[in-house]
Amino acid sequence: MSMQGLMMQQELMISDLIEHAATVHGNREIYTLNADMTEHRYSWADCAARTRKLANALLAAGVKTGDRVATIAWNNYRHIEIYYAVSSIGAVVHTINPRLKPEQIAWMVNHAEDSFLMFDTTFGPIIDGVSAMCPTVEKWICLTDEAGLPEYKTDVLDYESFIAEASDQITWPRFDENTACTLCYTSGTTGDPKGVLYSHRSTILHAMAGSFHDVIGAGSRDVILAVVPMFHVSAWGLVYSAAMVGAKLVMPGPGLDGPNMCKMINQEKVTLMAGVPTVWLGIYNHAKANGIDLPTVKKALVGGSALPESLLRAYEQDLGIPMQQGWGMTETSPLGSTYAAHPDTDLSDYDGTVSDKLMAGRRIFGVDMRIVDDEGKVLAADGEAEGHLQVKGPWVASGYFKGAGADAFTNDGWFATGDVSKLHPTGFMEITDRSKDVIKSGGEWVSSIDVENAASDHPDVAMAACIGIRHEKWQERPFLIVQPVPGKTPDLDEIKDCITAKCAKWWLPDAIVFQDELPLGATGKILKRELKVIYKDHYEKTI
Amino acid sequence: MSMQGLMMQQELMISDLIEHAATVHGNREIYTLNADMTEHRYSWADCAARTRKLANALLAAGVKTGDRVATIAWNNYRHIEIYYAVSSIGAVVHTINPRLKPEQIAWMVNHAEDSFLMFDTTFGPIIDGVSAMCPTVEKWICLTDEAGLPEYKTDVLDYESFIAEASDQITWPRFDENTACTLCYTSGTTGDPKGVLYSHRSTILHAMAGSFHDVIGAGSRDVILAVVPMFHVSAWGLVYSAAMVGAKLVMPGPGLDGPNMCKMINQEKVTLMAGVPTVWLGIYNHAKANGIDLPTVKKALVGGSALPESLLRAYEQDLGIPMQQGWGMTETSPLGSTYAAHPDTDLSDYDGTVSDKLMAGRRIFGVDMRIVDDEGKVLAADGEAEGHLQVKGPWVASGYFKGAGADAFTNDGWFATGDVSKLHPTGFMEITDRSKDVIKSGGEWVSSIDVENAASDHPDVAMAACIGIRHEKWQERPFLIVQPVPGKTPDLDEIKDCITAKCAKWWLPDAIVFQDELPLGATGKILKRELKVIYKDHYEKTI
Repeated sequence: MSMQGLMMQQELMISDLIEHAATVHGNREIYTLNADMTEHRYSWADCAARTRKLANALLAAGVKTGDRVATIAWNNYRHIEIYYAVSSIGAVVHTINPRLKPEQIAWMVNHAEDSFLMFDTTFGPIIDGVSAMCPTVEKWICLTDEAGLPEYKTDVLDYESFIAEASDQITWPRFDENTACTLCYTSGTTGDPKGVLYSHRSTILHAMAGSFHDVIGAGSRDVILAVVPMFHVSAWGLVYSAAMVGAKLVMPGPGLDGPNMCKMINQEKVTLMAGVPTVWLGIYNHAKANGIDLPTVKKALVGGSALPESLLRAYEQDLGIPMQQGWGMTETSPLGSTYAAHPDTDLSDYDGTVSDKLMAGRRIFGVDMRIVDDEGKVLAADGEAEGHLQVKGPWVASGYFKGAGADAFTNDGWFATGDVSKLHPTGFMEITDRSKDVIKSGGEWVSSIDVENAASDHPDVAMAACIGIRHEKWQERPFLIVQPVPGKTPDLDEIKDCITAKCAKWWLPDAIVFQDELPLGATGKILKRELKVIYKDHYEKTI
Repeated sequence: MSMQGLMMQQELMISDLIEHAATVHGNREIYTLNADMTEHRYSWADCAARTRKLANALLAAGVKTGDRVATIAWNNYRHIEIYYAVSSIGAVVHTINPRLKPEQIAWMVNHAEDSFLMFDTTFGPIIDGVSAMCPTVEKWICLTDEAGLPEYKTDVLDYESFIAEASDQITWPRFDENTACTLCYTSGTTGDPKGVLYSHRSTILHAMAGSFHDVIGAGSRDVILAVVPMFHVSAWGLVYSAAMVGAKLVMPGPGLDGPNMCKMINQEKVTLMAGVPTVWLGIYNHAKANGIDLPTVKKALVGGSALPESLLRAYEQDLGIPMQQGWGMTETSPLGSTYAAHPDTDLSDYDGTVSDKLMAGRRIFGVDMRIVDDEGKVLAADGEAEGHLQVKGPWVASGYFKGAGADAFTNDGWFATGDVSKLHPTGFMEITDRSKDVIKSGGEWVSSIDVENAASDHPDVAMAACIGIRHEKWQERPFLIVQPVPGKTPDLDEIKDCITAKCAKWWLPDAIVFQDELPLGATGKILKRELKVIYKDHYEKTI
């Protein structure tokens, strides 16, 4: 008969995080650049006190377990308070990406049935645009004080008045650790957005894994610049892991440009920063143009889209800032794999380290990975076989909100990521393509990502999209659409040279065309679907 | 109504750890100094394959879920295989301290109802001493091969023959994560030993916390020397956290003396090491006497008993090896708090860092702490109030095996550690005494630990025990028993000077006596209970 251990049955709860930070790391600071570009500082103890006030105010206003409270907000201290207060009373934080179109935002608010919506002043126009379309929302709360509250088309409360009278003492409720805490929609390039519903358990386990040395690995002396937005997969869990280990947080609000970033990094002595490649490029360009050193930074974590080699080398060889690429998705909380130098790697040979750094990272304990062929047969993790990447683990989604997208989950309990990957015996995962972007020429894979990255090595290429289109002889052949750097006309032969320098000869697209602006989705991804429609008959017509 | 998250319900299982190590960190090495002082090397992938063989062999031999499999063994590769195989099939590893007396070992085997007992050749005499007293044990297995198997009074199998025919493939069973995995008895200074029964969940969560930067924080490039024995609170979880992050393990077997330790550290390029103060002293003395540098070591984790200032300074200022003190108990898995420099601390002022380093460390997320007075009233965590330390968390025991020692667990869900502590606003916990060793003189606490540590600063003092004994005027007064360094007779006034240099004047014991050998318990702790019996009337007689 099975024997139970005799250990305390303590639920993994988000409220424990904020109280831990308040008690053990009480005087550690949280810095915010506000929406109005003023600065704000307070401590984890202050944050916890205001989190309790907000929780009491929400309870008094009738927010119940399971209710959804939406945010359209920057990375700032009030957004942190919302994260902790809403989840800790058993309600659900629904983070919304302000870059979405108003009708997409309204769709999400209605699908989530949000009862509260809290937003930064910056996003007032969005609120005026959607409020009439969102009948479930009972209260609109603007993240400001009474004096700072603009006029809106609908009734709006200011945050400070909302929490002013509430007590800063609370006995947090304890409940099943599998209770939902956060809802985040992922907008693919096809179909309606799908909601991922995180639990207290998954959030705590994910933050613990994020605290591993080879993952993010912050300690209490670290100063974390959270560039990745809180509406983008909970800022990769940084708000939670910082409280867990007592790190200082630097919340950049709307100051995501090079000058503001560089100023914050040096002023606050940032040691760790996390964001997408485009932000890192902005920092690099500003730092170089103005001769700014960033001596306190020990690591820049990169995710969201593939790290270009040129950016890696710019940071590591020029700025002296190690970069760490990670891979994840909204469905994986997101941490799935992060770069950590393999023990057999000779770090004194810099060039020899680059190829590993450009992969998606080594797998983190807790996230199992496998690759399968088109028929679902599991392929070898030998660094050769290429297949559809599937993942499994306690911080991986088991389904989408309200049952959407069930075909992404296999019968044997894995999530199909939509990525095409190789799994290396060294523990590295390598993304070679997105399943739906896959190009198969004469039965052989062509990596559209590799072709795009190689073309982007050309200095006059701003962006590139490689798609597979119908071809009489080869069924499908790669085709490249290039968005030039404004004012430049890249030389076609030079682009081809860039590609042949890094790719198999037969991966070279049969045609390359220019387009001034590639179509982008709400999260900045190229909408290849649209390009495929435009160019689908290009080869058949030209034969 | 509460809303459940939509995340995968994957149990936290120890089998996932060994398979993660095999898949992601497959070629990373485990080094062992065997019981016969020969060396052994293999990889995590090899370890996993043999773990599966052992699991299949145990299943074939009839080991069932919940059965207890005991070990009396050094830190070596076969012991690691036992850890993973036994737990992963749902059975329970019962680690036994070979330093216990035979009757104590027999008592534990019978109390645990062990059905298998696996032991290193070194401990053959113990087996011959206890086998007749242990009727529940069906199989005795010696950790050697057929050729190396000595004669025993009872039937003994050799480990290699036991696993030889078993398959190295298995589909690990998945079950409730609260299932027991490990049993470890803690022998206090009073009463029968009490069994702490860890679960898969507590073990995985504890190993995750151990992987935090400010706790142990190993990465895949680290080489961990596990000096702390696997029979001592699962070697502080190192065998688990190493698999979790892919670190190399160095298992020293019986080679715990200075010369063997120094050789292993430099030969295997150890970066992290963990053990009790006495071992560190052995390493220091050997290294200094022979001019040996230990340049690869980045950190020495210290626990088990208080770190003396002289040892801290010897390592940090002389050897250049940072020391990190931690606190924990068998009941806390053990990690409860570890030293991490407070962000406000100026590390360039070495002397200013020492007092924090001599405390019990900062609290780890997951382990709540409070101090209470004699009536159970919670006291302030202000660095001033002193009280009985109680802890709570998912890797803290909720009770002892078979219901023993229930008075250590409060009605509101806390474990009473038996330590007297202060909780500092900086997150540091400071042990000021053991509850049962507490001295109260005229209503004021006297810290026996501080007095002992101060007396130990004298070069001719090997060990010191400070006890409280009856006193007419002050109810109780401190009394010091000193074990001199062999061949030395410490000067009494010099010892007093050492104490008054560091302690309140009224803490100075009214009498100091010498005793050639202080009585020690099985785990090396001074048996103050015996001293109290001998000296209880000393002051009343001498008044």
